[in-house]
Amino acid sequence: MRISATLLTLLCACAPAPAQYPNAPIVGTTLCAPSVVAPSLASATPDRAVGPLEAAYSKRATLIREHATARTDAFERLRFLTDNIGHRLSGTPALDQAIDWAKKEFQKDKQENVRTEKVMVPYWRRGKESGRLAGPVTRDVKVLGLGGTVPTPKTGLTAPIIVISSFDELDKRADEVRGKIVLFNVAMPPFDEEKGSGYGAVVPYRSEGPSRASKVGAKAVLMRSVTARSLSTLHTGALRYAKDVEAIPAAAVTTEDADLMARLAAKGEALTFTLELASQTAADVPSANVVAELTGSERPDEIVIIGAHIDSWDLGQGAHDDGAGCVMVMQALADLRTLGLRPRRTIRAVLFTNEENGLKGALGYSEAHKEEVPRVVAAFEADVGGFAPRGLMVETTDTKRPVIVPRVQDLMRLLEPLGATRVVPGFSGADLIPLVKSGVLGLGLITDHRSYFDIHHTEADTLDKVDAGDLAKNTAFVATMAFVIADAPDRLDSE
Amino acid sequence: MRISATLLTLLCACAPAPAQYPNAPIVGTTLCAPSVVAPSLASATPDRAVGPLEAAYSKRATLIREHATARTDAFERLRFLTDNIGHRLSGTPALDQAIDWAKKEFQKDKQENVRTEKVMVPYWRRGKESGRLAGPVTRDVKVLGLGGTVPTPKTGLTAPIIVISSFDELDKRADEVRGKIVLFNVAMPPFDEEKGSGYGAVVPYRSEGPSRASKVGAKAVLMRSVTARSLSTLHTGALRYAKDVEAIPAAAVTTEDADLMARLAAKGEALTFTLELASQTAADVPSANVVAELTGSERPDEIVIIGAHIDSWDLGQGAHDDGAGCVMVMQALADLRTLGLRPRRTIRAVLFTNEENGLKGALGYSEAHKEEVPRVVAAFEADVGGFAPRGLMVETTDTKRPVIVPRVQDLMRLLEPLGATRVVPGFSGADLIPLVKSGVLGLGLITDHRSYFDIHHTEADTLDKVDAGDLAKNTAFVATMAFVIADAPDRLDSE
Repeated sequence: MRISATLLTLLCACAPAPAQYPNAPIVGTTLCAPSVVAPSLASATPDRAVGPLEAAYSKRATLIREHATARTDAFERLRFLTDNIGHRLSGTPALDQAIDWAKKEFQKDKQENVRTEKVMVPYWRRGKESGRLAGPVTRDVKVLGLGGTVPTPKTGLTAPIIVISSFDELDKRADEVRGKIVLFNVAMPPFDEEKGSGYGAVVPYRSEGPSRASKVGAKAVLMRSVTARSLSTLHTGALRYAKDVEAIPAAAVTTEDADLMARLAAKGEALTFTLELASQTAADVPSANVVAELTGSERPDEIVIIGAHIDSWDLGQGAHDDGAGCVMVMQALADLRTLGLRPRRTIRAVLFTNEENGLKGALGYSEAHKEEVPRVVAAFEADVGGFAPRGLMVETTDTKRPVIVPRVQDLMRLLEPLGATRVVPGFSGADLIPLVKSGVLGLGLITDHRSYFDIHHTEADTLDKVDAGDLAKNTAFVATMAFVIADAPDRLDSE
Repeated sequence: MRISATLLTLLCACAPAPAQYPNAPIVGTTLCAPSVVAPSLASATPDRAVGPLEAAYSKRATLIREHATARTDAFERLRFLTDNIGHRLSGTPALDQAIDWAKKEFQKDKQENVRTEKVMVPYWRRGKESGRLAGPVTRDVKVLGLGGTVPTPKTGLTAPIIVISSFDELDKRADEVRGKIVLFNVAMPPFDEEKGSGYGAVVPYRSEGPSRASKVGAKAVLMRSVTARSLSTLHTGALRYAKDVEAIPAAAVTTEDADLMARLAAKGEALTFTLELASQTAADVPSANVVAELTGSERPDEIVIIGAHIDSWDLGQGAHDDGAGCVMVMQALADLRTLGLRPRRTIRAVLFTNEENGLKGALGYSEAHKEEVPRVVAAFEADVGGFAPRGLMVETTDTKRPVIVPRVQDLMRLLEPLGATRVVPGFSGADLIPLVKSGVLGLGLITDHRSYFDIHHTEADTLDKVDAGDLAKNTAFVATMAFVIADAPDRLDSE
C-alpha cells in the first residue's frame, strides 16, 4: 500500500464526521478507535431510523455474511498466493505467475469477461546491499534499499554521517550536509486509539527526503525504518526523485541502528558509513491488470468496481499488502455467484498491477476505460491489510458528499454485525486516484490496522499474521457492499 | 541469560507461596502478574505487621531509593558498554574490552579489592551462514546458527525437510528422520499474566533437539526461533551435544519461515533445504571475572555476592542480556559508596564471564573461592533484563526455606515503593548454580519480563529497549537488598 498525503491526514486526524451533515446519522465517528465501538450498534439503539438500503437488503446481507464467515476459502487462496508464489514485485516472474493464477481462479469461479489488460510497468531490482558503520566500534549495519533507489558506485560509497531529525533541521544545517550521508532519524509515533497511526508524520522523509537531501549536497540518504515497533526490522517503500536534483542512493536502516547512530552522534563521535547498493533500473516491461465480472441483470453497463493490487514489494510474502485485498475481492465475487445473487448492475473485480512502485496499472486502467466513467457508480479498493473490517472511507466532491455520506451510512448498518461501523470522508485508495480524479465515487476499506505498520513493506508481512476469520469477515463486507451498491434501485452517487 | 529447567518451571507455573509457610506474610504471591499488583501495598494494608528488617532499614532504603532513582548513571554506563563496546561473545576482543572497562569503572568508583580473576573460556565463532528452501518456490531462508553448532561441509548440506512438532512425534516418526533435516516447529506460548512466559515449554528443543534428532539419524536441525512474537526475527542460544551421538549442525529459522515450511509440508509439498554454517570451534582462550568490593565494617570476611554476566551472544548489543544486570550491580555498589553506607559485612560485585556458552566464569569463581562458602551469606544475580523490578527468586534447601522466605518477605517490604513485591522459591541464576550447589543461598532478580523473550538472544537486544528509569529502580533494588543483607545483625541464611 502506498498512502497519499490526503489519506495520511485522515488516518491521523480522526476527524469526527463533518458538522455540515447535521442530519446524517453518525455511524462511527472516527477511523481510529475501532475497539471501543461495539460490533453492533443495532441492539443498543433499537429506535433508530431504518434507512432504505438497510430495509431492502438486510436478509441478503445476512445470507452473504453467514455464507462467507462459515468458510476459509479466501484464506486458502491467500495461502496459495503467498506460499506457492510468494512476493511479486513489478517486472518479476512471480508477478506474472500471480496474474496468471488470479485469472485462472476467476475462470474456475466461472466469472464473466475474465481477462488481463496489458500495461507497461517499471523494472527495478535490488542487488547486493550492505552497510558498515565506522565509529567507536566498526560494525555491519543492515540496510534495505528504498524502492527505486539508484545504485551506489560498485565499490560502495563512503562518507561521514549527519543525523537530521526534521526537514527544518535539514534546511538550517544545509551548509553541513554537503558531501555527507544524511540519516533521517524521525521516530514514527506509536499507534494511538485516538490519533491512529503515526505513519503520515514520517513517510515524507522516505518519499521526498532523498531529493531534499540531494538538493543541499548530500551523497546518499539513510532512512530510519518507518515503523513504531521494531525487532531489528527493515522497512522499504517508494521514494520519488524530484526532476531538478541529482538522484542519490537511499536505503532504510532499522530503528535500532538509527537510534545507535543518533546516540553516538549526540556524544560527538565521528561516524563514517559505507553504503553499497547494487540496484538496477531497466526499460519498462509488460504486466497486466486482471479483470473479472459478475454482469448486471438489468443495467449491465453500469459498473461497481471492487479492486486491490496484485503486486507487492520484493520481500516477505505481500500477505497483508495486498494479497489480502486481492483474495477478498476474488472471494466476494465468487460468493455472490455461488449464492445466486446477481445484482442489477455489473460488479467488476480489478486486480491492479504495479501499485507499489509506479501506479501504472491504475493509470492504464483509467486510460483504457475512460469512456465508462459516467457509468461507474462507485470504485472500491481494499488495500489496508486483511485485519477485521471497520468501515469505509468515502472520497467524493464537496458537492456530492452531503448526499452520499448518509447513503453509505445507511449501507453501513448492514455491515455492523461484522464490526464495521465507520464512514469517514477521505482518501479511498491509491489505485483509485485516476478514477476519482475523473469524477468517480471512491470507497476505501477501513480495517483495524493497529499492527499494520509493524509489518508494512517488510520481511514480516507473511501469512501467519493474517487471521482467516478476519479475512472471511472482509469477504462478507466486500460482497455485501458491492451487491447492495450494484443492486440498489437508485445510483449511490446520484445527486 | 541461560535458563535452567527449575527456573523455567517457576517462571511458568506462577505457583502461589507454598502452603507450608502459613505464617509467612505473602508479599506478592506470584511471579507472573506484575501489572496487577499496586506498586505499594503499604498504604492498602496499614495494619500489617512490620518485620525487623523493615523496621531497622526503612530510612536507609528511602535514602538509597531517592538517590538512585534521581539519576541515570546506570543507563549511562550501559550506553557506553553497548554503543562503544557492543556485543561481546566469549573469546572476542570486545569481551576483553568490556572486562577491562568494567574493572576501570570499579576503580574510578573507588571500590576496594578491584581485580580480574582469570578463567579459560570456549572459543566458538559463527561464520558465513545461509539457507535455501526448494519447494513450490525456491527462496532464501534466513538462518542463525545455534550457539556451539558444528559447521556444515563447506559446500553446504542439502537434505529433505521433515517437520516435527514434539519430541513424542520425533520418537514416533524416527524411521522417517534418517538422512533428513529436522525442523523443530514448536510454537512458544505467548506471555500470559497468569502463566508467565512460555519459554520453558519450547527451549528444550533448542538445547537437546539436535542431539535427539541426531540419535535417530537426522543430518541437521532447524529450530523455530524461541519467541512468541516475531517480526522476522532470529533467536540464537546454546545447544548441548550429548556425548553419545554425532554432533550435527543446527540453526534457528524465523517463526515465519517455520510456519511457511510447516504449511507447505502439511499440503504434501516436498521440501529440500540447503544449509551452510561455517562456524568454528578452537581451543579455550583466557577470559576473566571482574570483582570489586565494598568491604564490611565489622565482619569483612562475611560476604554478600551481587552478580551479573559480562559476556553476551554475538548479535545485537547484549543490552538487556546482561548489560543491564552488570550496570545495576556496578551502580548499586557505587551508590552505596557515594552515600557512605558501609555495611557490617562485605558486598562483593562479581561480573561473571562466559555465562552464555559455557558457564566457565561461574565454575571458575566457585572453584577459586570454595573456601569462602561458609562465609557467603547470600549470592544474588540479575540476569532477567533491565525491566522494572518485581521481586526475588529464593533458592535454598527444603530445610532452610521456611526460615528464609519470611525474612526475604520482610526485606521485600523495603522494596515495595519500587514496585517489587514478589518472593518466589526457585532458581536464582545460572552463574549461581555452582555456589548454590555448595550450599549458598541464591537470590535472583525478578523483573517485568513480558517483552524479554521477544528480543532475547537477537539483533534486537539493543539499548533503545532499555528504560533508564527502570534501570535506576533496579539499581535501588540491588543496592537496598545488598546493603540490608550485608548489614543485618543476623545472617539472612542462618537456621
